[in-house]
Amino acid sequence: MKLGDIARTLQCELRGPEDLEITGVAPIQEAVETELTFVANPKYYPQLSSTRAAAVILGKDAPPCDRPTLVSSNPYLAFAKAVELFYRPPRPVPGIHPTAVIADTAVIGENPSIGANVVIGDHVRIGARAVIHPNVTIYPCAEIGDDFVAHSDACVREYCRLGDRVILQNGAVVGADGFGFAPQEDGSFYKIVQAGIVILEDDVELGAHACVDRATVGETRIGRGTKIDNLVQIGHGSRVGEHNVLAAQVGLAGSTRVGNHVMLAGQVGAAGHLSIGDRVVATAQTGIARDVPEGARISGTPEMDSALWKKNYILMHEFPQLVKTIKRLEKEVARLRERLGDEG
Amino acid sequence: MKLGDIARTLQCELRGPEDLEITGVAPIQEAVETELTFVANPKYYPQLSSTRAAAVILGKDAPPCDRPTLVSSNPYLAFAKAVELFYRPPRPVPGIHPTAVIADTAVIGENPSIGANVVIGDHVRIGARAVIHPNVTIYPCAEIGDDFVAHSDACVREYCRLGDRVILQNGAVVGADGFGFAPQEDGSFYKIVQAGIVILEDDVELGAHACVDRATVGETRIGRGTKIDNLVQIGHGSRVGEHNVLAAQVGLAGSTRVGNHVMLAGQVGAAGHLSIGDRVVATAQTGIARDVPEGARISGTPEMDSALWKKNYILMHEFPQLVKTIKRLEKEVARLRERLGDEG
Amino acid sequence: MKLGDIARTLQCELRGPEDLEITGVAPIQEAVETELTFVANPKYYPQLSSTRAAAVILGKDAPPCDRPTLVSSNPYLAFAKAVELFYRPPRPVPGIHPTAVIADTAVIGENPSIGANVVIGDHVRIGARAVIHPNVTIYPCAEIGDDFVAHSDACVREYCRLGDRVILQNGAVVGADGFGFAPQEDGSFYKIVQAGIVILEDDVELGAHACVDRATVGETRIGRGTKIDNLVQIGHGSRVGEHNVLAAQVGLAGSTRVGNHVMLAGQVGAAGHLSIGDRVVATAQTGIARDVPEGARISGTPEMDSALWKKNYILMHEFPQLVKTIKRLEKEVARLRERLGDEG
Repeated sequence: MKLGDIARTLQCELRGPEDLEITGVAPIQEAVETELTFVANPKYYPQLSSTRAAAVILGKDAPPCDRPTLVSSNPYLAFAKAVELFYRPPRPVPGIHPTAVIADTAVIGENPSIGANVVIGDHVRIGARAVIHPNVTIYPCAEIGDDFVAHSDACVREYCRLGDRVILQNGAVVGADGFGFAPQEDGSFYKIVQAGIVILEDDVELGAHACVDRATVGETRIGRGTKIDNLVQIGHGSRVGEHNVLAAQVGLAGSTRVGNHVMLAGQVGAAGHLSIGDRVVATAQTGIARDVPEGARISGTPEMDSALWKKNYILMHEFPQLVKTIKRLEKEVARLRERLGDEG
Repeated sequence: MKLGDIARTLQCELRGPEDLEITGVAPIQEAVETELTFVANPKYYPQLSSTRAAAVILGKDAPPCDRPTLVSSNPYLAFAKAVELFYRPPRPVPGIHPTAVIADTAVIGENPSIGANVVIGDHVRIGARAVIHPNVTIYPCAEIGDDFVAHSDACVREYCRLGDRVILQNGAVVGADGFGFAPQEDGSFYKIVQAGIVILEDDVELGAHACVDRATVGETRIGRGTKIDNLVQIGHGSRVGEHNVLAAQVGLAGSTRVGNHVMLAGQVGAAGHLSIGDRVVATAQTGIARDVPEGARISGTPEMDSALWKKNYILMHEFPQLVKTIKRLEKEVARLRERLGDEG
Repeated sequence: MKLGDIARTLQCELRGPEDLEITGVAPIQEAVETELTFVANPKYYPQLSSTRAAAVILGKDAPPCDRPTLVSSNPYLAFAKAVELFYRPPRPVPGIHPTAVIADTAVIGENPSIGANVVIGDHVRIGARAVIHPNVTIYPCAEIGDDFVAHSDACVREYCRLGDRVILQNGAVVGADGFGFAPQEDGSFYKIVQAGIVILEDDVELGAHACVDRATVGETRIGRGTKIDNLVQIGHGSRVGEHNVLAAQVGLAGSTRVGNHVMLAGQVGAAGHLSIGDRVVATAQTGIARDVPEGARISGTPEMDSALWKKNYILMHEFPQLVKTIKRLEKEVARLRERLGDEG
């Protein structure tokens, strides 16, 4: 594909030859002489001088580059679209595989691709153009919108409701029982029937083995456009807003409320029954124990302001020396007090 | 359903009209004018004044409430039972689905409900009234008690033994190989055959994608009534006692011993080869590195007393200021010593 | 089996009777009077005096023991081989189960054992002697070497490439979509097609529900002999070297580079776009935020030298007292300065 054609398709400004032939897209360190690469993160600018790539997608603020360049106001997005120009994922086989077990009362929209050994229960409704890979299980009475994609071993439990364009990676579980047990006098636990549901709004994606538990009563809800990575746990009754990013292994305990445009990095945990405001950013492994106001940037367990946390952890390296200093000062001050007859 | 009938069924004291019609149960913030709600956690008492609920289940110690009330000695348990009055989960289809693959040598008890594409291996024994959802795999020689419930993609590996009333949520794995590898001289690892089993005693529940690994030799055991949440890892050879609660994403390394009535909050980890005493409570993300005496309440990594940990984390906010104070004191004391000719 | 025969098979020095009959292998606390046990970790030497075991495998440096002993230069490895002498895992049924769904264009090597409801897509290539348990899904165009073992619900996604002797425990996912989304001006996210693959080199093992994500472009690679435990997350584009050990619930964000012979204990996390050198050891729950030089031993979040970290956490116990001391010193020094008319 010619670089000029790519520039037009990606709506980038071309700084370089129209007819340079590009064979693919690759990360900056791996690109070969005929490939296109990109830099969106300034951390990687220094690698521009050593990459073998034929051309590079850069932002408007990037330093000057002597290589053929596609200049974009959003280089990461331009890269995303460039990848699509060169990669063809396997096409899902149209139709319903004969080994799929679909209840007579289920209603499936037009043009589905349903793989081997998929099981779809009674009264399920699924919209148009669903792509359901092998070994997926949809429990009775689930309702799912158009353009659903479910990878192998994903599961949607009874009564849960999914919007349009929802994607479930392999093994994602929507609507398993919430973790609710009432302690009894003898110290044993009584299982609380989890009568609620899960709602995933439009354009939600769940990663591999991510779990969103059904509510005890009412609903657990994931808002429009929110992206959830692998092995994430969303406790029952949580309400997660729109366009959030929850990285791998994040865990939200029950009844957590999360605003919009929130970013929780890997392994962040939140205790239940608290609120996380809009646009909060929590760095990896943060343990959120209290309500967090909108726009806060937090770190540590329990969470604190990220800047304070960083300062403290730099000071931690001096901690043993500080303790020695304090002990020395104690002795010195005691001696001075004695000499001066100070009795406090 | 009439409020008076509900009060009698739940064995609550009724403070309000017998014949108030209740249509369902809901959380305090979501209940509509015909629903019953509850408050067990005093944190939510203030919401009693704003809820739209028709009536509320409260503990004997709750503040007075001008709404129709059901008073219970265990309001959370009463709520659990109220939920059951209004919710009917889909009934499992009786019988064995024709696509289930069940070995001739397997023995299944009376009145099973076995879903599509379930695979049950040779010499498996399962008790009465099992409900096995689609795509579950039971490996050869597993032994399972009565009233077993297994959700889709759950798995019980070879030779493992499960008591009565065990529940496996979707994708729970009982008896995968423990993580055992012997280092060899060339730096590579030799896989140790995991010859042991897993035993889940009566009334154990495993959450979605929870993993309990088989022992190298001997057994990994989860005691009676213990409840394990989603994405929890139990390492090989661990012994977990009775009526414990392990919240989501907890990880116990191999050969961890846990007493009874222990509560480990979300994302707690325990290094292997250590003991956690009865009634220990560990707050979220605690990293347990040593034996923990019974009754301890712990936090932090490595774990310390929760009260000390809280105090330290409050002081952490003053840490940068303290460091400045120490440096100032150092200068001042040095100057005083100089003035006084103090030479230590 | 006679102790003498065991000694010869394991290439151990025998200190004790040739003809002692051994019936099995067990952990030191659980062994009965006819069983063989072992101690590799000096922490367990004290239990040598109380074990009921008939005989024990010990290292050359172990204290003298009055029990029949097999002396080995690598007692843990000798134990591993002893386990194999007494345990016979269920033999996989030879052949291909009639319910397996295998594409006509797939090529399967000699002597496979393929269980019920396995699904293998178009153009898949699998080497000799594969053991594929029920409900496994292999997507189109995957290439897998000889002696593959895949447990139930494991999955290999499209185009991924696995070497020889790879083992996937139950639910392991190779090649789910990486977590890549480009932010758009309106605050929503654009899904980046994940066009890359995963490569697992020879002798890699993935634990139950471990996830190794496919790269956006290029590859995610796990080096020869690396062992990955349950519920581990490997982000897209990561490169993990050879003979590493990643314990349960470890998470590596995207584009992490890990050297060889690295050990990451349970729940360790690494931020993306960083390098971890050869032979690094990270203790449990370490949060790695920067490049780590080879041979480092690290702890804490963010990571620091383990020895410093331990020292700090011991000092943490004195922290409230230190703060009091500083405040007292401040007052005393102020008073002394006043008395001396010191004005700084």
